[in-house]
Amino acid sequence: MEFEESGIGEECGVFGCVAAGEWPTQLEVAQVLTLGLVALQHRGQESAGIVTSNGACPPIYTAHKGMGLVSTAFPPEALLKLRYGNLGICHTRYSTTGISELQNCQPFVVDTLHGKIAVAHNGELVNAHALRKKVMRHGVGLSTSSDSELITQLLALTPPMEELDAPDWVARIKNLMSETPTSYSLLVMFKDVIYAVRDPYGNRPLCIGRLVPISKLHSPAAEEEDTEGWVVSSESCSFQSIGAKYYREVLPGEIVQISKHGIKSLSVVPRPEGDLPAFCIFEYVYFARPDSIFEGQMVYTVRQRCGRQLAIEAPTDADVVSTVPESATPAALGYAQQSGLPYIEVLCKNRYVGRTFIQPNTRLRQLGVAKKFGALTDNFAGKRVVLIDDSIVRGNTISPIIKLLKEAGATEVHIRVASPPIKFPCYMGINIPTKEELIANKPEFKDIAGYIGAGQCSVSDCGGPAISCPGGNCLTTRRKTR
Amino acid sequence: MEFEESGIGEECGVFGCVAAGEWPTQLEVAQVLTLGLVALQHRGQESAGIVTSNGACPPIYTAHKGMGLVSTAFPPEALLKLRYGNLGICHTRYSTTGISELQNCQPFVVDTLHGKIAVAHNGELVNAHALRKKVMRHGVGLSTSSDSELITQLLALTPPMEELDAPDWVARIKNLMSETPTSYSLLVMFKDVIYAVRDPYGNRPLCIGRLVPISKLHSPAAEEEDTEGWVVSSESCSFQSIGAKYYREVLPGEIVQISKHGIKSLSVVPRPEGDLPAFCIFEYVYFARPDSIFEGQMVYTVRQRCGRQLAIEAPTDADVVSTVPESATPAALGYAQQSGLPYIEVLCKNRYVGRTFIQPNTRLRQLGVAKKFGALTDNFAGKRVVLIDDSIVRGNTISPIIKLLKEAGATEVHIRVASPPIKFPCYMGINIPTKEELIANKPEFKDIAGYIGAGQCSVSDCGGPAISCPGGNCLTTRRKTR
Amino acid sequence: MEFEESGIGEECGVFGCVAAGEWPTQLEVAQVLTLGLVALQHRGQESAGIVTSNGACPPIYTAHKGMGLVSTAFPPEALLKLRYGNLGICHTRYSTTGISELQNCQPFVVDTLHGKIAVAHNGELVNAHALRKKVMRHGVGLSTSSDSELITQLLALTPPMEELDAPDWVARIKNLMSETPTSYSLLVMFKDVIYAVRDPYGNRPLCIGRLVPISKLHSPAAEEEDTEGWVVSSESCSFQSIGAKYYREVLPGEIVQISKHGIKSLSVVPRPEGDLPAFCIFEYVYFARPDSIFEGQMVYTVRQRCGRQLAIEAPTDADVVSTVPESATPAALGYAQQSGLPYIEVLCKNRYVGRTFIQPNTRLRQLGVAKKFGALTDNFAGKRVVLIDDSIVRGNTISPIIKLLKEAGATEVHIRVASPPIKFPCYMGINIPTKEELIANKPEFKDIAGYIGAGQCSVSDCGGPAISCPGGNCLTTRRKTR
Amino acid sequence: MEFEESGIGEECGVFGCVAAGEWPTQLEVAQVLTLGLVALQHRGQESAGIVTSNGACPPIYTAHKGMGLVSTAFPPEALLKLRYGNLGICHTRYSTTGISELQNCQPFVVDTLHGKIAVAHNGELVNAHALRKKVMRHGVGLSTSSDSELITQLLALTPPMEELDAPDWVARIKNLMSETPTSYSLLVMFKDVIYAVRDPYGNRPLCIGRLVPISKLHSPAAEEEDTEGWVVSSESCSFQSIGAKYYREVLPGEIVQISKHGIKSLSVVPRPEGDLPAFCIFEYVYFARPDSIFEGQMVYTVRQRCGRQLAIEAPTDADVVSTVPESATPAALGYAQQSGLPYIEVLCKNRYVGRTFIQPNTRLRQLGVAKKFGALTDNFAGKRVVLIDDSIVRGNTISPIIKLLKEAGATEVHIRVASPPIKFPCYMGINIPTKEELIANKPEFKDIAGYIGAGQCSVSDCGGPAISCPGGNCLTTRRKTR
Repeated sequence: MEFEESGIGEECGVFGCVAAGEWPTQLEVAQVLTLGLVALQHRGQESAGIVTSNGACPPIYTAHKGMGLVSTAFPPEALLKLRYGNLGICHTRYSTTGISELQNCQPFVVDTLHGKIAVAHNGELVNAHALRKKVMRHGVGLSTSSDSELITQLLALTPPMEELDAPDWVARIKNLMSETPTSYSLLVMFKDVIYAVRDPYGNRPLCIGRLVPISKLHSPAAEEEDTEGWVVSSESCSFQSIGAKYYREVLPGEIVQISKHGIKSLSVVPRPEGDLPAFCIFEYVYFARPDSIFEGQMVYTVRQRCGRQLAIEAPTDADVVSTVPESATPAALGYAQQSGLPYIEVLCKNRYVGRTFIQPNTRLRQLGVAKKFGALTDNFAGKRVVLIDDSIVRGNTISPIIKLLKEAGATEVHIRVASPPIKFPCYMGINIPTKEELIANKPEFKDIAGYIGAGQCSVSDCGGPAISCPGGNCLTTRRKTR
Repeated sequence: MEFEESGIGEECGVFGCVAAGEWPTQLEVAQVLTLGLVALQHRGQESAGIVTSNGACPPIYTAHKGMGLVSTAFPPEALLKLRYGNLGICHTRYSTTGISELQNCQPFVVDTLHGKIAVAHNGELVNAHALRKKVMRHGVGLSTSSDSELITQLLALTPPMEELDAPDWVARIKNLMSETPTSYSLLVMFKDVIYAVRDPYGNRPLCIGRLVPISKLHSPAAEEEDTEGWVVSSESCSFQSIGAKYYREVLPGEIVQISKHGIKSLSVVPRPEGDLPAFCIFEYVYFARPDSIFEGQMVYTVRQRCGRQLAIEAPTDADVVSTVPESATPAALGYAQQSGLPYIEVLCKNRYVGRTFIQPNTRLRQLGVAKKFGALTDNFAGKRVVLIDDSIVRGNTISPIIKLLKEAGATEVHIRVASPPIKFPCYMGINIPTKEELIANKPEFKDIAGYIGAGQCSVSDCGGPAISCPGGNCLTTRRKTR
Repeated sequence: MEFEESGIGEECGVFGCVAAGEWPTQLEVAQVLTLGLVALQHRGQESAGIVTSNGACPPIYTAHKGMGLVSTAFPPEALLKLRYGNLGICHTRYSTTGISELQNCQPFVVDTLHGKIAVAHNGELVNAHALRKKVMRHGVGLSTSSDSELITQLLALTPPMEELDAPDWVARIKNLMSETPTSYSLLVMFKDVIYAVRDPYGNRPLCIGRLVPISKLHSPAAEEEDTEGWVVSSESCSFQSIGAKYYREVLPGEIVQISKHGIKSLSVVPRPEGDLPAFCIFEYVYFARPDSIFEGQMVYTVRQRCGRQLAIEAPTDADVVSTVPESATPAALGYAQQSGLPYIEVLCKNRYVGRTFIQPNTRLRQLGVAKKFGALTDNFAGKRVVLIDDSIVRGNTISPIIKLLKEAGATEVHIRVASPPIKFPCYMGINIPTKEELIANKPEFKDIAGYIGAGQCSVSDCGGPAISCPGGNCLTTRRKTR
Repeated sequence: MEFEESGIGEECGVFGCVAAGEWPTQLEVAQVLTLGLVALQHRGQESAGIVTSNGACPPIYTAHKGMGLVSTAFPPEALLKLRYGNLGICHTRYSTTGISELQNCQPFVVDTLHGKIAVAHNGELVNAHALRKKVMRHGVGLSTSSDSELITQLLALTPPMEELDAPDWVARIKNLMSETPTSYSLLVMFKDVIYAVRDPYGNRPLCIGRLVPISKLHSPAAEEEDTEGWVVSSESCSFQSIGAKYYREVLPGEIVQISKHGIKSLSVVPRPEGDLPAFCIFEYVYFARPDSIFEGQMVYTVRQRCGRQLAIEAPTDADVVSTVPESATPAALGYAQQSGLPYIEVLCKNRYVGRTFIQPNTRLRQLGVAKKFGALTDNFAGKRVVLIDDSIVRGNTISPIIKLLKEAGATEVHIRVASPPIKFPCYMGINIPTKEELIANKPEFKDIAGYIGAGQCSVSDCGGPAISCPGGNCLTTRRKTR
C-alpha cells in the first residue's frame, strides 16, 4: 500500500511474439501482442507501443504508440494498421521521470546501416551517465533522457572489427552487455528475429512461452510440432490470456534468439566472479501479478510464505488478521494460516479516488486515507487487529490507517510488514525516496508504534537484514523468498 | 461476477449537499460534491454531472457535465467554475439504454415559471410509457427517452389549483408520487433547498449524513451546533470520504427538505395497503459498496451472512473455499467461517481486460475468461474447491471458470451461489436478460452441474423462493438478508 | 471588417433535403446535407447538426451533432450512421450567447404525442421573453435559453381544438406565426415532410432549389420529371455545390411543404397592414456569401452597386481605391469602376491570427491590427488612398488601419463606408453593441476623421437614412440595395 | 490554384528570437515566437514547435510541440511553460511524406557532449540518402526519415580535430555545408546564441529583423540602442506582426550569429565557381505571403509584374480580366493594368470545402470544383474572360473551372498562366508530380485549349524557358522576376 502511495514504480513491461512456421502467418500477431500487453498493464499505465515486422527482405516495420492504457492507446484502426506483422515487440510504460510524452514511448526504432532495429527495454542502466558521455563523445546526439534510446544507439554503433555488410547483432549485444552490467531485460527486433536479453544479474524478469492450439493448451503431451508461435514477456501471467504455455525463464546474462524456427540460446554472459544474482525484490513484494512465476515459484506463493514467516518471526496476541488491500492479501492469508487467527477484511478500497482534482484545503485535506478506504466496522469493532502490509517506505500512510481503524472501533491495531526494512534507495530504476526519507533509517523506527502515534499498537517488519541495493535490496531476496 | 459479465446494471448514484448556517459558506461545497460522487463511482462510470446553486434570490445555477469517470469529467477548471455554490446536487450514470451521450447526463435542469429546478434521479418508472403519453398529451415535447427528463417535466407542470406566484413544490412532488409508485430516489433542487425523495416501496437507497468538523468526526458527543452541512447520498460509503456522520435513511415514501436550517421531514407517502417494501435485492447482492449501510446493516455483513447461510443450506465435502473476485468475497469468507473449511484465493483478476478492442477470431475467442482471470494454481492443485459466486444469471461465465480451475489442477469444483435463483426480469430498471435467457428458468437448471459441462462438479444456490420482481426479486430480500 | 472585429454575428444557417420519387432513395441525402452545410459554414462555425428521417411509418430518426466545423463535427462514421435518411434537415450555428455547448446545438428533436419533430431555426424571436413565460405557465420546463427549443415546445403544444390522433402541423405552425411576428426562417421535419417557413417580415433568408442530374444542371430544358430531390437553404450559394438549380425564394410569411411529391405552398401569412418587409440589411452588407441570390439579385452585385453609389455620393480626390479585405472588395471594385480611379490592394490579411492565445502585455498589445494585416507598401507609398469598408460599428478598428497605412507611406487615407450609419441595436438577433457604443451616435461622428485621429483623412458613409431596426436597419435595405 | 489542388507543398517556416541586453529579459520571447509562427502559418499547418533557452550556464531548454495550427498546438499552459526563455527558435511544418506524427515535429533537440542543441530546418537535402548512409556508417541510428534529424546528428558528430571541451559550432556548421550544398535555411540554437544559416544557393529564404519599441517602429531615426531583440524568419511578413523592422536577408551561404550582443556575420560559404544562386521560384509564384520581401522586392510586386509581362507576351482579345483566387490575384491585377481591360471577380471561394469527409459517389463526384467555387455570374455573363492562374501543374483543375465559367455564361474563357511551364520535378523538397504527370511535358500541351476540352478557349503561359531544377526551375527566377 505504501508503495502505491509513495509513487514507487518504474516497472515497465515488455512483450514479444514471433509466429512459427510459414509466413505470412495465420497467427494474429498484433492481437496476441495487444492481449499480452494488457496482461502486463499493471506494470505501467502511462503509455504503450507496438512495433511489428513482416520479416521480409527488406522488412516492413509498422509502429503505433499512444498515451494511456492499452485500450485507449490502441483503437481498432491501430490494430488494423499492425495486422500484417509476422513478429513484433511491445512495451507498456510507467513514467519515473515525470515527463509523460509520446516521444518517450517505447519501443524505440532506429534506422541503421543494416536496416531498422526496434528495442523495448525494462530497467535502468547503473552507469547510464558514463555511457551517455561515451555515446555523445562518439558524436551521437541523444534526443531523450531515456536509457532505452541510449541502448538503441549503443547497438547502432558499428564495432570497428565488424564487416560492413553483415551486422553481427549478437556481438553487438554482447558488447553492450560488457559495457553495462545491469539492469535490463531487453527485446531487440531486427528484420525477422527477436533477441531476448537479460542482464547478468537477472535484475528484471523475462520469460518465454509457447503458443499452442487452444485445444492442446492443457494437454501435457503437446508436441513441438504443435507450436504456433513463441512469446517472450516480463511476466508469465500474460501467457494464460493468450493461450501460451510457460516454457522457461531467460537466464541471467542470456541472449536468446527467437525466430520462426524456434528458440535458440546464443550465449550466457557471466557475472563477475563471486557476484550473486540480484533479482529485484520488489517484483515479489509489490510489482508482479500474483499468478506470475519467477524462479520456479508463483509470486502469490512467495507472498503467502512471507506472511507465514512473519507470523513466526513476529507473532501477535490479537483476535483477527487482515490486509491493506490489495497487494498484502496473500501475506495476510499466510499470516492467518500460520498463526491460527481468523482472517477478515477491515478495509474497503475505492479504486477511483486517486485520480480526482480535489484542491487541498483545510477540511478535506484532513480526511487523508478516508477518501481511499472505507472501514468495514462490523468485522473488527471491539477486536484486536493484526494488519499486514506489504512494505513500509516513508511510514506516513500506515499511521492514518491505524487511526481510521481505531476510531472505527478496533481496540488494538498491530502492524506487521511482509518485507524487510527498506534502508537504501535503488540504483536500478526503482523510484525509492532518499535515504533520509526512509522510515527504516530514522531513529524513531525502533519505536515505530510510538512514532506513528498509535497507542496500543505495534509495528514489526519481517526481520532479516535491511534491504540495500545493489548487493542489498535485490540480494536479500535470496533469503526471504525461499 | 456474472452480473458484471452480463452487463447487468443501471445503478446510478445521486448525491447532494447543503451548507449549514450563513451563506456564502466556508464549506467547499463543489469539492464535497465531487468527492461524494467519486465515492459513488462504482454505481456508474459513464458520465457525471454537478449542478450548484448559490441559493440567492434569484439564484445562480452553475452546471458541469462530462463523459467518463468523475476524474475525467471534472478537470480543475470545472471545479473552479462551480466554486460559488452553497448547495448542489450531482449524479453519476450507468447507461442502460446504450445511448451514451452528453445530452442524457443528469442532473436535468429546466427553467419553469418560478425559476430553475434541477433533478437527479436513480431508478426507473414502472409506468414510464403511460406517463410520457400523459405529458406529451399536455403538449410537452420530450427531448430524450430518459425517465429523469420525464420527472423533471412532470414537476414543471403547474397543478391547476396552485397559486401562480407561489409554487408548492411539495404538493407537486406528492402529485408526482401519486402518479408513479416506483422506482425512484430523487433529489430536487430549487433555489435554496434540496428535496430528497424515496419512492413508497423504497426500491432504491437514499440516506442522509451530517458534515461535522473533522476533529469531531469520531466524537459521539458531536452536537447539532457543530453541523457544517448536510449531505444526501445513494450510499453511506460516501460519508466517510467527506467527513460526514451517518444520520439516517430517507424512509420509503418520505419527502425530506434539506436547507441551511437543517433537515425537515415533510411527508411520508404510504404504500397501497398490504404492500410490503421492495428494496432492490441487487443492492445487497452486487451493486453497493460493502461498507455502505442499508436498513441498519452493513452490506458486507449481509453478504457474509448469506455465505454462512449458504454453508448451512448447501454444505459441500471439499478441501477449500474460494471466491470469484471481487464481489463474492464476503460470502466466501462467510461460507468458510461457517463450514470450517479454509479460505484461499484461486483466481487473480486482470482489471484492464474488459476494455480492449480485440477482434473476435478463432484462436483468441476460444480463450474466454482466461483473458480476465489467472489461476493461482499452487493454492488449489489437487484439491476439491467450493467456489462461491454472488449470483448466477445466464450461467455462461461460470462454466469456463470451472473449466479453467479443473485444467489448472482442481480435482473437484463445486459452485455455490450466494443469492436465490434469478427467475424474472426486473421492471424497475435493472437490466436483466429476458426470462428465457435466465438459467434458473431452464429445464437443465435442475442438473446445472451437468448443464455447464463439468464432471465432478455441483452447483447449488442459496435456496429460498425464486427471485421475481416486483413482489418478487425485491421482496425476497426480506428473508435472505435478516 | 469591423463586423468581424466587433464579433457581430448570429447568422446561423439552415439546410434541408427531401429525395424525390420512390424511397429508399438512390440519392445520398446525408452527403447532400453535409455538403450543403459546408456551403453555409460562413454563417456559423461553432457547431453543426444533422437529423435525418427514413420517412417510414413510424419513422426512424437519426441525429448527429458536434462542436466546431462541419469537417470536425462529421467524421466518416457519423455520415455512415446517417446514410439511411430519405429526408433530413441540418443546422450550422454561430453562438451569440457565449454558451458553446453541445446541448445548444440544433436541430432540436422532441418526441410528441404524434411522434418526433425536428426543428432547425435561424433568427431570434422579438417576443421570446413573453413566449417563454407563456410556455412555462403551461407547465413546460425549458432546458436551454435557446429560441429554437422554445419554438419546438410551442409546436408540441396541442391546440385545444385539434383532433388527438391527427396533428395538424400547418395549423400549429400558423398558430406559432400568429404568436411571434419575427425573426425566423424555420425548417420543421415530421416523419416524411419538411415544412419550410419564413416569418411575415422576411427578416432572414430562405430559398428552394431542385436537384437535377448533373448532366442537366446547365440545360435550360430540364423538366420536372428530372427532379432527383428538393433542397431548402438559407442561401442559394449552397445549390451550386450539390448540383441543384435555384428554384425560388420562400416568400415572407409563407409555409412551404416539401415532400417526395414536390413543393406545395400551403399558406402565406400576411404582415400587419401597412408594414413593409424587413429583410436584414446585414445579409447584404456582411453575412451572405457573394454568390448567393436574395430577392432576385446576386449579393456581390448589390455590394458592387453600393460601391458605385458611394462613389457618386461621396467622391474623393485620390489616386487609388482599395478594400479592407475581404467582404468590402465588391464595393471597392464598384467605387473604382464608378470613380475611374485604379483599384489596388493595400492590405494582406493573415487568416490565422484571431485564434492565438497571446497574453495581453505592454509591447504586443500595442501592435493591434498589425497582427492581422500586412501592408502591401509598394502599391500605395506616396499615394492618396480611398479605402472602402463594408460598415462602421464602434469605429475602433478603422483608426489603427489608417495609422498603419499612413506609417507605411500613404500620403492621405480616405475612408468610405458602403452601408448607412448603424445607429440602433438590432432586436432580431444580430449581436450589435448598445446605442451608446455605436460611433454613428457619437457627437464626434460629424468629424469622424478628426475623431479617429488621422490627419489628411476623411470618412464618409454611403448616406441615406441611418439604419435602425425594426422599422430601421432592416427597412433601409429597400432604398440602398435597388 | 493548381498548386493547392495538387498538394504541392513542403514549405515549412522557421523563426527565431534573441532578446537584446540584460537577461532575464523584459521581452516576452515566447509570445514573440508564437506570433511570429502565426505569421508563417501559411507555410505549414500540420504541426508547430517552439524551443526556448534561458541562456544560462548550463542552459535550461523548454520545448513544446503539437499537431495542427499554432492556435491548437499552443494552448495558454504551453505558453506559460515557455515563459522563461531569453531566446528561442520555432518551426511550423507542412508534411511532404504523409507521416503526420508528433515525432516528426521540429525543432529537433539533442543532447551532445557539450550540451543540448536545437535545430529548425526548412528545405530538403539533395544528397540526403548518401548523408544518411554516412551518418549510419558512423554508428548513429536515425529515428525518423527527416532531413532535420539528419542535420542535427551531423552537427552532433565531433570532428576529429576538435578540442573535446570547446565545441566549435561554426566549424561544424561549415563542415555540414561542405557536405551538402542545398537546400536549407537553418536555425541552430546552442545555449545563448542562434546560428542562422542559408545554403550557398540561397534556395530557401531567411531574413533578419530588429525588435524596436513600438513607438519607434516607424521612425527612420531608430538607433541601435533602441534594439529590444533580434528576430530571424523565413519571411519578413512576420516582422510587422511583432513590431520588428526589416534588417536584411541572410545571404546565400552565410552563417550569422545572433546573440544578446547583436548580429555578427561569421562566414559566407561560396558556391562552386560558375554556379548561380537558385532561389526557389515557387516562393514567388505561390508559397510566400504577398507582403514578404525577397531580394529587395515585395512578393506582391513580383507577382503583379509577372501579370504585366504576361499581358505583353500573351495578349488576349477579351472583355474582362479575372483571377483564380487567391494567389493569382496580384498577377491578374497586373494583367489588367497592362492590358487596359477591366478587372472583375468571377469566382467565390469556399474555404471550408477541402476538409469534409464526402464519400465519392456517382452524383457528387461529378460536381468537382463546384464544391469549392461559386460563379459570380452577373460579373461575366455574356463576356469574354481572360482568367489568370498562378501556375499550371497537371492541368486537371483548370479544365473544370473553364467549364464552370462557360456554363455560367462566359462566351469565351482564355487562360493565362503567370509562371513558366513546369517541366521537371523538384529535387529540393517541393512535392511536384513526376515528369510524366506534368502537363507541360505532354504532347497535347501545344494545343492545351483543345486538350482541356474548352471550345473558344486558349491557354498561354508566361513563356520563357521551361522550369527545371536544379539549374532549372530555380534559376529561371532570374529572368522572370526582374
